[in-house]
Amino acid sequence: MSEQSVATYLEANRDRHLEELLEFLRIPSVSTDPKHREDVHRCAQWVADHLSGIGLEGVEIHQTGGHPIVYAEHCKAGDDAPTILIYGHYDVQPPEPLEEWISPPFEPRIADGKIFARGATDDKGQVFCHFKGLEAQLAVHGALPVNVKLLIEGEEEVGSDHLEPWIEAHAELLKCDAVVISDSSMFAPGLPSITYSLRGLMYCEVTVRGPGHDLHSGLYGGAVPNPINILSKLIAGLHDDEGRVTVEGFYDRVRELEAEECEAFASLPTSDEAFLKEVGAPATHGEAGYTTLERRWARPTLDCNGIWGGFTGEGAKTVIPSKAHAKISCRLVPDQDPHEVEAMLERHLKAHAPPSVEVIFKPHHGARPTIAERDNPTVRAALRALSRSWGTEAVFIRGGGSIPVVEGFERLLGVSSVLIGLGLNDDRLHSPNEKFDLENFFHGIETSAFLFEELA
Amino acid sequence: MSEQSVATYLEANRDRHLEELLEFLRIPSVSTDPKHREDVHRCAQWVADHLSGIGLEGVEIHQTGGHPIVYAEHCKAGDDAPTILIYGHYDVQPPEPLEEWISPPFEPRIADGKIFARGATDDKGQVFCHFKGLEAQLAVHGALPVNVKLLIEGEEEVGSDHLEPWIEAHAELLKCDAVVISDSSMFAPGLPSITYSLRGLMYCEVTVRGPGHDLHSGLYGGAVPNPINILSKLIAGLHDDEGRVTVEGFYDRVRELEAEECEAFASLPTSDEAFLKEVGAPATHGEAGYTTLERRWARPTLDCNGIWGGFTGEGAKTVIPSKAHAKISCRLVPDQDPHEVEAMLERHLKAHAPPSVEVIFKPHHGARPTIAERDNPTVRAALRALSRSWGTEAVFIRGGGSIPVVEGFERLLGVSSVLIGLGLNDDRLHSPNEKFDLENFFHGIETSAFLFEELA
Repeated sequence: MSEQSVATYLEANRDRHLEELLEFLRIPSVSTDPKHREDVHRCAQWVADHLSGIGLEGVEIHQTGGHPIVYAEHCKAGDDAPTILIYGHYDVQPPEPLEEWISPPFEPRIADGKIFARGATDDKGQVFCHFKGLEAQLAVHGALPVNVKLLIEGEEEVGSDHLEPWIEAHAELLKCDAVVISDSSMFAPGLPSITYSLRGLMYCEVTVRGPGHDLHSGLYGGAVPNPINILSKLIAGLHDDEGRVTVEGFYDRVRELEAEECEAFASLPTSDEAFLKEVGAPATHGEAGYTTLERRWARPTLDCNGIWGGFTGEGAKTVIPSKAHAKISCRLVPDQDPHEVEAMLERHLKAHAPPSVEVIFKPHHGARPTIAERDNPTVRAALRALSRSWGTEAVFIRGGGSIPVVEGFERLLGVSSVLIGLGLNDDRLHSPNEKFDLENFFHGIETSAFLFEELA
Repeated sequence: MSEQSVATYLEANRDRHLEELLEFLRIPSVSTDPKHREDVHRCAQWVADHLSGIGLEGVEIHQTGGHPIVYAEHCKAGDDAPTILIYGHYDVQPPEPLEEWISPPFEPRIADGKIFARGATDDKGQVFCHFKGLEAQLAVHGALPVNVKLLIEGEEEVGSDHLEPWIEAHAELLKCDAVVISDSSMFAPGLPSITYSLRGLMYCEVTVRGPGHDLHSGLYGGAVPNPINILSKLIAGLHDDEGRVTVEGFYDRVRELEAEECEAFASLPTSDEAFLKEVGAPATHGEAGYTTLERRWARPTLDCNGIWGGFTGEGAKTVIPSKAHAKISCRLVPDQDPHEVEAMLERHLKAHAPPSVEVIFKPHHGARPTIAERDNPTVRAALRALSRSWGTEAVFIRGGGSIPVVEGFERLLGVSSVLIGLGLNDDRLHSPNEKFDLENFFHGIETSAFLFEELA
């Protein structure tokens, strides 16, 4: 029986699979940082070589205006068999602040049944599960029951700017029946999950410029605009006392949750106590009238991701700086539009700034929110594969993060994506000490191997 | 005539005096930065050697718990002659941001009749005028008509923590009739001024701690406290719409201006247009109901001097940071007390923070505001010396900055200080491209030399 032999193959190759992942994790493919450009390219080459090595065909590194895209395929199951596109990314978030890592971010460490490294779960570890699922099928059967294509990009963490034009230009190559993506989390340890909706993103940088140069706070304080105080006031004014965003029109397109969804959320095994323990905060904080899961999955947000200005060194300096800056982002929900929200926010900030300062608004990348069907052949196959591997019924959840490409695949290729999250919520992605549980890694490989059978 | 020969001496030694000042300015005596500790000590030694060289006696470098104090004296005018203590400081502010300096901060450059360097006006250039005034008197007359003591410290820019205990311990050594300090500005170019009141200072650092570690804004955004947003709200809440500080009790001890002072301020040659050109801001900003001079000289303030948190690098990172920080200071006016204000602010911030965060309040140094007599023998001598050198009537002004030691001399030695500002308001002290006009430098030396005669 094929199941038996695939499982046996996976069991026999555990150590090697893990070693290979660690090799993948050692490459500091930080896409946002120009000084890691070479590493990002090296990582693309590593992925391409690896995919060739396990028997994929048509492996090619496609150069873009930014970081390269790796493509590979195995399309020998015939025209009647479904074609599945696997998407993932080999780039990672910057590791800063470095001093908070227990071990260096690009020297993977295994402890307590977990792999600690930048990219362990986001997304190297997860996409690598599919590499190994494919390897197992090809090694055991010499063939795949479905046609498989892979698209592994290197700009997910910086907004995938060059991906959409590339997909558009390669629509024929990428033609498929469904997309499978593992770049999210299971709801809880041991509870396999499929994510059917993702939040979108609007990201921008705001600069408030007051005096023409830094000033002595004694000589000038009290009579000149202080950019830090004014930026703080602008940021503070973006929420009302109920935790709602005050930007005009912000909620106009927000789709309210269906009663059935609220019930499903409420039945999931979670509590605010567990959540607070996970995040290490004294209390929750957010929009009045919604539960924590609703706030995280189905409500839009506005958060500062960074702020800086004036003297930030050791000691005291009595300066009034010329400028202050903030990085601000909004998580968006169906059917908000990132460009609309960007324009609204810019308008709002400029309208609320006093005449004593200038506000400079610089948009970064955005992503549209998505919501998918919960009943089609690919979703059903994924549910069966997950349930077989984990021995328990998989559930439907939403995700708070953004995978911009999901909306892109829908719009450009006319296909929807099935999000099979293999990580856990406490994986600390984007934070120091990011990790991936070994249990999830090995179940992830198995789920991928089973998925190709269930899809047939 | 002594005036003639002192003037002749000064004229003949201009170039050398300037060269010596440049040498003084080349020592990066940044007191707040531990890595400049050696430079600060080297600078104290330079001052001591220089004072010995011009004929002062009892020159000694006094070690303290922090940076050293240089003491020197020339007390041969007899018991009937007045004794004057000259105070100044040889330490300087940090030069950051370095990229905004046209020439390196510790490589003095002369251009357009100005000396550009960190410390050019604050306070090396100004205190050095007294060194040269003394030198001229001693070189020409071989004696001084008054008894002179000098106290040159190295911690003025970090709050003079070790100065008060040292003054207390050396009260007999420092016994004098009045203190003379040049560490402030003339009201306008060519308009010599005596400053009779200074604002005080309260300086602190505030940290808002939310989640226990940095979080992904997609997975958690909307449900957890964002320390940057909350810090911004706390800062924004510190002012009302009229630009008044909202901290309870903040204005309780504030002494309102006398009508006569308001009239004197109003008659000074200034305008908001000129002020805005000086600071390079689009509009003034401050407490409603007060003029720009009143806001700068006689009203208390609350300014952020620095803010930082989250991702501040190139590009975009969708993080919710664990912590955000701000440096906050208040300029205080008679009769506010820095410790009282510090306690009020800490109470206010903690009371207004939501239960989802922790507020950590760390006080830095403070300084009491001061206000002095406008009529006594030292003040009158200073007015005459200034008028003689500049050929125009000197005026009384207030100062917005803090010279904490002024209040200390009053309390510990029972003497008041005469503040003879030799700098200009556009000297950019504490900012990049700090400068000192050559005209002010040479008039400053002359004023000092004349002062010793007028005091006799």
